[in-house]
Amino acid sequence: MDSSNSASSPDMQKPKIVTGPGGYVLEDVPHLSDYIPDLPTYPNPLQDNPAYSVVKQYFVHVDDTVPQKIVVHKDGPRGVHFRRAGPRQRVYFDSDEVHACIVTCGGLCPGLNTVIREIVCGLYHMYGVKKVLGIDGGYRGFYAKNTVYLDPKVVNDIHKRGGTILGTSRGGHDTSKIVDRIQDRGINQVYIIGGDGTQGGAAVIFEEIRRRGLKVSVVGIPKTIDNDIPVIDKSFGFDTAVEEAQRAINAAHVEADSIENGIGLVKLMGRYSGFIAMYATLASRDVDCCLIPESPFYLEGPGGLFEYIEKRLKENGHMVIVIAEGAGQELLSESIQSMTLKDASGNKLLQDVGLWISQRIKDYFTKQRKITINLKYIDPTYMIRAIPSNASDNVYCTLLAQSAVHGAMAGYTGFTSGLVNGRQTYIPFYRIIEKRNSVVITDRMWARLLSSTNQPSFLCLKDSIEDTGDEEQSNQLLANGHCGEEDSLISKI
Amino acid sequence: MDSSNSASSPDMQKPKIVTGPGGYVLEDVPHLSDYIPDLPTYPNPLQDNPAYSVVKQYFVHVDDTVPQKIVVHKDGPRGVHFRRAGPRQRVYFDSDEVHACIVTCGGLCPGLNTVIREIVCGLYHMYGVKKVLGIDGGYRGFYAKNTVYLDPKVVNDIHKRGGTILGTSRGGHDTSKIVDRIQDRGINQVYIIGGDGTQGGAAVIFEEIRRRGLKVSVVGIPKTIDNDIPVIDKSFGFDTAVEEAQRAINAAHVEADSIENGIGLVKLMGRYSGFIAMYATLASRDVDCCLIPESPFYLEGPGGLFEYIEKRLKENGHMVIVIAEGAGQELLSESIQSMTLKDASGNKLLQDVGLWISQRIKDYFTKQRKITINLKYIDPTYMIRAIPSNASDNVYCTLLAQSAVHGAMAGYTGFTSGLVNGRQTYIPFYRIIEKRNSVVITDRMWARLLSSTNQPSFLCLKDSIEDTGDEEQSNQLLANGHCGEEDSLISKI
Amino acid sequence: MDSSNSASSPDMQKPKIVTGPGGYVLEDVPHLSDYIPDLPTYPNPLQDNPAYSVVKQYFVHVDDTVPQKIVVHKDGPRGVHFRRAGPRQRVYFDSDEVHACIVTCGGLCPGLNTVIREIVCGLYHMYGVKKVLGIDGGYRGFYAKNTVYLDPKVVNDIHKRGGTILGTSRGGHDTSKIVDRIQDRGINQVYIIGGDGTQGGAAVIFEEIRRRGLKVSVVGIPKTIDNDIPVIDKSFGFDTAVEEAQRAINAAHVEADSIENGIGLVKLMGRYSGFIAMYATLASRDVDCCLIPESPFYLEGPGGLFEYIEKRLKENGHMVIVIAEGAGQELLSESIQSMTLKDASGNKLLQDVGLWISQRIKDYFTKQRKITINLKYIDPTYMIRAIPSNASDNVYCTLLAQSAVHGAMAGYTGFTSGLVNGRQTYIPFYRIIEKRNSVVITDRMWARLLSSTNQPSFLCLKDSIEDTGDEEQSNQLLANGHCGEEDSLISKI
Amino acid sequence: MDSSNSASSPDMQKPKIVTGPGGYVLEDVPHLSDYIPDLPTYPNPLQDNPAYSVVKQYFVHVDDTVPQKIVVHKDGPRGVHFRRAGPRQRVYFDSDEVHACIVTCGGLCPGLNTVIREIVCGLYHMYGVKKVLGIDGGYRGFYAKNTVYLDPKVVNDIHKRGGTILGTSRGGHDTSKIVDRIQDRGINQVYIIGGDGTQGGAAVIFEEIRRRGLKVSVVGIPKTIDNDIPVIDKSFGFDTAVEEAQRAINAAHVEADSIENGIGLVKLMGRYSGFIAMYATLASRDVDCCLIPESPFYLEGPGGLFEYIEKRLKENGHMVIVIAEGAGQELLSESIQSMTLKDASGNKLLQDVGLWISQRIKDYFTKQRKITINLKYIDPTYMIRAIPSNASDNVYCTLLAQSAVHGAMAGYTGFTSGLVNGRQTYIPFYRIIEKRNSVVITDRMWARLLSSTNQPSFLCLKDSIEDTGDEEQSNQLLANGHCGEEDSLISKI
Repeated sequence: MDSSNSASSPDMQKPKIVTGPGGYVLEDVPHLSDYIPDLPTYPNPLQDNPAYSVVKQYFVHVDDTVPQKIVVHKDGPRGVHFRRAGPRQRVYFDSDEVHACIVTCGGLCPGLNTVIREIVCGLYHMYGVKKVLGIDGGYRGFYAKNTVYLDPKVVNDIHKRGGTILGTSRGGHDTSKIVDRIQDRGINQVYIIGGDGTQGGAAVIFEEIRRRGLKVSVVGIPKTIDNDIPVIDKSFGFDTAVEEAQRAINAAHVEADSIENGIGLVKLMGRYSGFIAMYATLASRDVDCCLIPESPFYLEGPGGLFEYIEKRLKENGHMVIVIAEGAGQELLSESIQSMTLKDASGNKLLQDVGLWISQRIKDYFTKQRKITINLKYIDPTYMIRAIPSNASDNVYCTLLAQSAVHGAMAGYTGFTSGLVNGRQTYIPFYRIIEKRNSVVITDRMWARLLSSTNQPSFLCLKDSIEDTGDEEQSNQLLANGHCGEEDSLISKI
Repeated sequence: MDSSNSASSPDMQKPKIVTGPGGYVLEDVPHLSDYIPDLPTYPNPLQDNPAYSVVKQYFVHVDDTVPQKIVVHKDGPRGVHFRRAGPRQRVYFDSDEVHACIVTCGGLCPGLNTVIREIVCGLYHMYGVKKVLGIDGGYRGFYAKNTVYLDPKVVNDIHKRGGTILGTSRGGHDTSKIVDRIQDRGINQVYIIGGDGTQGGAAVIFEEIRRRGLKVSVVGIPKTIDNDIPVIDKSFGFDTAVEEAQRAINAAHVEADSIENGIGLVKLMGRYSGFIAMYATLASRDVDCCLIPESPFYLEGPGGLFEYIEKRLKENGHMVIVIAEGAGQELLSESIQSMTLKDASGNKLLQDVGLWISQRIKDYFTKQRKITINLKYIDPTYMIRAIPSNASDNVYCTLLAQSAVHGAMAGYTGFTSGLVNGRQTYIPFYRIIEKRNSVVITDRMWARLLSSTNQPSFLCLKDSIEDTGDEEQSNQLLANGHCGEEDSLISKI
Repeated sequence: MDSSNSASSPDMQKPKIVTGPGGYVLEDVPHLSDYIPDLPTYPNPLQDNPAYSVVKQYFVHVDDTVPQKIVVHKDGPRGVHFRRAGPRQRVYFDSDEVHACIVTCGGLCPGLNTVIREIVCGLYHMYGVKKVLGIDGGYRGFYAKNTVYLDPKVVNDIHKRGGTILGTSRGGHDTSKIVDRIQDRGINQVYIIGGDGTQGGAAVIFEEIRRRGLKVSVVGIPKTIDNDIPVIDKSFGFDTAVEEAQRAINAAHVEADSIENGIGLVKLMGRYSGFIAMYATLASRDVDCCLIPESPFYLEGPGGLFEYIEKRLKENGHMVIVIAEGAGQELLSESIQSMTLKDASGNKLLQDVGLWISQRIKDYFTKQRKITINLKYIDPTYMIRAIPSNASDNVYCTLLAQSAVHGAMAGYTGFTSGLVNGRQTYIPFYRIIEKRNSVVITDRMWARLLSSTNQPSFLCLKDSIEDTGDEEQSNQLLANGHCGEEDSLISKI
Repeated sequence: MDSSNSASSPDMQKPKIVTGPGGYVLEDVPHLSDYIPDLPTYPNPLQDNPAYSVVKQYFVHVDDTVPQKIVVHKDGPRGVHFRRAGPRQRVYFDSDEVHACIVTCGGLCPGLNTVIREIVCGLYHMYGVKKVLGIDGGYRGFYAKNTVYLDPKVVNDIHKRGGTILGTSRGGHDTSKIVDRIQDRGINQVYIIGGDGTQGGAAVIFEEIRRRGLKVSVVGIPKTIDNDIPVIDKSFGFDTAVEEAQRAINAAHVEADSIENGIGLVKLMGRYSGFIAMYATLASRDVDCCLIPESPFYLEGPGGLFEYIEKRLKENGHMVIVIAEGAGQELLSESIQSMTLKDASGNKLLQDVGLWISQRIKDYFTKQRKITINLKYIDPTYMIRAIPSNASDNVYCTLLAQSAVHGAMAGYTGFTSGLVNGRQTYIPFYRIIEKRNSVVITDRMWARLLSSTNQPSFLCLKDSIEDTGDEEQSNQLLANGHCGEEDSLISKI
């Protein structure tokens, strides 16, 4: 990204904070009228839509907000709220005036096509918008010549397919070039679907657009199969991914169970956050050990992984391990430095934590313990990412997309559409990109997992938890007020 | 049910209401100590559990509550709250003293076996409880001799199977006989999994137990594939059901699409509430018309179903209709009375709304309109009910079951374990059974559906909506304060 | 069909029979050169195809034939053979000259789209043919105006969808009109995909074309989900159907198993032949009783169905019944006549054997035996027919389609492409339509089924088997020479 | 294996060859009475089985045989035949006398549990045999103490699970120790399920048993997911594997299609034979290149893989490659030798052809061609092996198992139960182990594949085909008489 992508930029819009009685705080989202005066408004075309016209309370009340923290005490403060998503009585775009574009960035995630479909159909059917451009292949598609116009017919069946019909890529973000093109083409609604990096990119695009004073709504739809985006309940595609991961875990269990000292090892997605591994483990009940980035572990010595493996093999004759791709990276990098690989490619291969830990386990038992083990390694990553979203994610994607459309039409900008405590809300970009959502290992959900797998906590007691853990926890407690909300996230489902 | 099952019984415990500042109300659940004085307490055994011991904030704070309504205004009242579920610092049962039993009642629902499994495993692994009885075949199993003791080994793989290993039945509830047997056998924790009728039964069992002053916790886990239980976000198995329903809708679409004037008709579950039909329709996007109990419709004349069918066939050459089993019952009963069926059995068959409406559509087009149509009727009901729960429902069932166990151990009774705004809570029985959750057809979710199918609203304008609709809506608005929370339910997911 | 559709027509071509040593008989297929003299031939374009050019023995030897009967004795006669399918050294059509058309008739069957796809791709890629017309909606599409040209791009993904992209219908056959249109449009290769009625129609089209002396190849591809076409090993889509039927049987088993006296009843396809029911039962192992058209049964009295049901319920507490749609039709028609239904539609409903037998079972146990049973009826017919073909059927459909194309290009006509003992062959139409393939209940496969379900044979001993059975069997034995080939059909798989 | 495992052993029984008129040859299987005189026989208990008693022609005629080659010419020779499998009028074991054992060896394959189940149920239900021992963990389980008796109840549901309930292992074969244990325990029927190595082991066990003159039937059931066992039509589990492989290919296609220059690479099973890769490719139609062990290929230069990849990427923007695990091993071993890996483990990792070729492709395009490609590698091997068999494989396994049981009861020994041209037969061990079944790349099936993928043949014309290919082909032609039967194998299905 170019240098303008700086949170400390003097240009950067200040957060819009509204306060109220009882400690009520609203972290509001930007609006076109914040920097463009005297914008005309129009009645929402939905009021003439036969499907909606019978719904008297259809439009969202201007004061509707949703609290971020909902485990409350009788006398506790009310805390942060977000603006509720949904259609507004009056909109800031005339339908014929709208020229929207959609772009998908980053890795695949089940549901991308459903989001695309529903933005297109939402704009067409709800607001009568006819110009929706598909940007090809991620951010860099903004500079490309070939673009494709999308309409309900084109997108009719795409939700039954995995992947993204728009194509995707990583990187390629050049803020001013992108904004130039948006301006050149007369685009005035930009829908950006992608992960935290992409949302960061959306934030700087928004800043630049605001700086130039353009009437362009910039809307983000957070996409991360890892569920590592903060604030929101969970990311779309996550349910589908956890479901599909069961297939790999079942296979690992069958393989392990059919042979003496069988170990089934499954690597799941999760570069920085182990949510998929944790939920797939909780859903399966066949897993004996789940390793995630948030919970450091060690291999050798008392309380280590090897000891636990040996114990399980003795007790049960077999075991299943689930490892998130980002787990144990410290161990991995140490290990690789000490190897005398001369070939660059070999080096790369070993950075796959699944292959690396498979080798370490085999070596340990074969060479050190002289025990024959039978390890089968399964990496279902691309098989999971590429499937179509399930019914639940389809509905979720529909709501996300429609909320995004309602928001843009209402003149909001610089926001992402997100589910907070089960309600569709509009969240300012900075809250989405400021940190990463991760499994809190001092939480009940992780405790549930430990209890279900019986694996060691890999915590060397005094040091790990009391030194670092406490501090981290205190921070979290501070942020949350007095009540740990650890059970939230997807336990919400 | 026996006559003691009356909400107006003088014995009936009063609701436990706690109020606080800003309009805060807590609808609390009963506790054994409410009617048994001087009960001893014990430290929660979880604090010695290696999985949990590292979790500093593991125990739920005694003041943690969760609001029912979370779309709020800056100056609005705080409204009703429920007690947050989770483990307490001190418990009211010694582990060795616990003698639990589990019963499943009513129709099948994906996830029943997972709930059973996790109650058993939760009691064993979290609290060291060893006596868990499985009641065979629903409420009437209380009087039967054969019972089976459950342990983690017995239930280890049951979550991978549909149905319930305990067996189930409808009815058979005799409060005093059941409580006699509970007393005879020394059972002191009763876990009752079932729908609203079953939860009503649980409520009177609780009342009788309270009347007799027994130290027995009665815990309900709401089960309804139709999602028609109020207060809670959604019922377990619902996601799985909506997912599986896609299969039938896809088939109906293929059948309809392959033949001239093809109509694919799918009947889905939903006796009083059309949630499955609505969500399955929203997830599929191949449905042209969705008929649910909450939205009355008519067949003939302008704005009627036949007119719409003819229109769709002309435009598209085929169409897909989804009908909930409880839709159009008024029409159905009229229609049947006017038939001169002499055979009792024939009569019964026709009460299937799917068969009935198939026949009406065929008759209308063949006889009145002289148009050849090809209607294929699919009833996947039993195929949906009988599948194992998906990953997301598995995790959900686990949390429900563990919350139930934590509540019983903590001495709470007369409550159901339920998800409110994504948080596990304890809800007093009376709130669960006082009314039925149903699709509000003046809501945005139903508007979304109408918009996606383009079907008529079947509202004869002036009369239907303005007379009845408004009133209903006002009530709802009253209940909800100023903000329609129509978007909640499963849009929460 | 019009009156010309008579096997005894004087016009009817005589079978082409070739005999050889050891009792060798070849039932050959017609060829364009049989009635058109001096047709030019061309080298097969495949010989310039890079994919095929390396294959030295690619072209089928003109003398290659495949025996119908392959369980042989050292001294037995060799019997009937069919011509082996495959590409010939010389073809009778110049690629640019070919104008092909494809039509699909009758009910849906998994694999229809794959067959369409592979005829199109085979003609294009193997023979360089560019004109392939899709006839819309079955035979009657020949007279319709709107037709669609097919090319590899159009059909690229259709094998992943169920149904038929061409649409289908029943009946609508008017030989001379169809042949007129074929002539008008200059079509010279006609691919007809359909069941025995459709193949009969193809036979009379062929006869008419031969009578008119047209250079038009008429090729049939037998389609029947019921597997009731004779001579061929099995029909495409059958495997997929049996696989999908497992889902319904599993559900029936779960439903039955979860309730006292639970009966799961599954109706499967099979109007005249019980193959799907039989194979689905054999594959599942959860079925207690399988009823098929070929094996008459009775309800009441000793050895009857009711007695058996009562026995199984006593022993096991539940049972699963699979019934083919054509089973028990005699009982059904008796039963219906004795009912006093005045409403025409009610009458129709009852013709569903599954609904009828459900009612009979319920009535018997409730009224006569005063036993409460819980019967759940599942009819997955349309869900099975509409799914895409599985991998095995996809490969099978590919071979069928390519064989058909090779045959037409080689100038053969009046034949169907069919698998005989695992080899692709060309079979004259009359062999396909002269009788129906059905389960031989005095065979080992049916004995296997009886042995696996433990159901009664419903044979009243002396009469049924000795009187009728023997004779039937003798006939079969006669037809087969001395060796019963009863194990053949799909046991071949 | 011990040294007695030698085909040239003087002890080795001679093939039992019977000849007849017209070039008829029967390769018969050994029988206990070949080396034990005066064995008593018993009437087959099946004749009193109610399920079978109505089947008059139930027993297989003693002269029934099945030809290996069935593409015949009018005047051609009849060739090799095998004995038809099935129950015989008289058996050589009294039911009470039978003490059977079952062992599973080698890698997992869908259907193992079905075979086990049906041997047990066949022995129990058809022959009244009560003693069936499960040998634990492959051949080495013969020496272990812990064994488990199997009965229909124990095996009732195992066909719904993947893997083998008996456990498996590789190697561990010690002929005389195994035969000692068979003798010690009084086992007289040995069912051995495994691949070619295992069947070789079975052959030497049989020889040793014959040498010792024991009345023990040794029966093999060929298991190989790769379909590399000769003579038989196809191995059980193959269909299931090809079906499951579609999932990985679909994912690869979605991944590749969603990104610029996307390459989806799927590794499938097939150490020496590329059948799974070939059939999965033919079934999918999304594959652009299929690499198998039988078809050598090269990477660089004209006609090489890299050139083809570049061409496809230019044309289509993405591509899918399927590679069998044994493909390109020559290239791989060269490549590895030239690397200077010092770490043993790194070395091992690189022996995975999928990882190796991924790296080579990436290196080539990145370094040499300076083209950014996006390669996603999927290895679904263990996910495929571990699934339960599909319906078609379930029926197939049932027939295989029952045939094995009928053969053992009839006193046959030293044979495997196998499907030949769709008929169950008994094949002498030596025919199963003498060579390996492999894809004949000068065959039509491979030509079909080349034609469907449009990939290059990787044949450097003159040398490869004319030098080696021809010879190989001639041999095959010799073996087959005059008619290439290349179309046979699974095209039979």
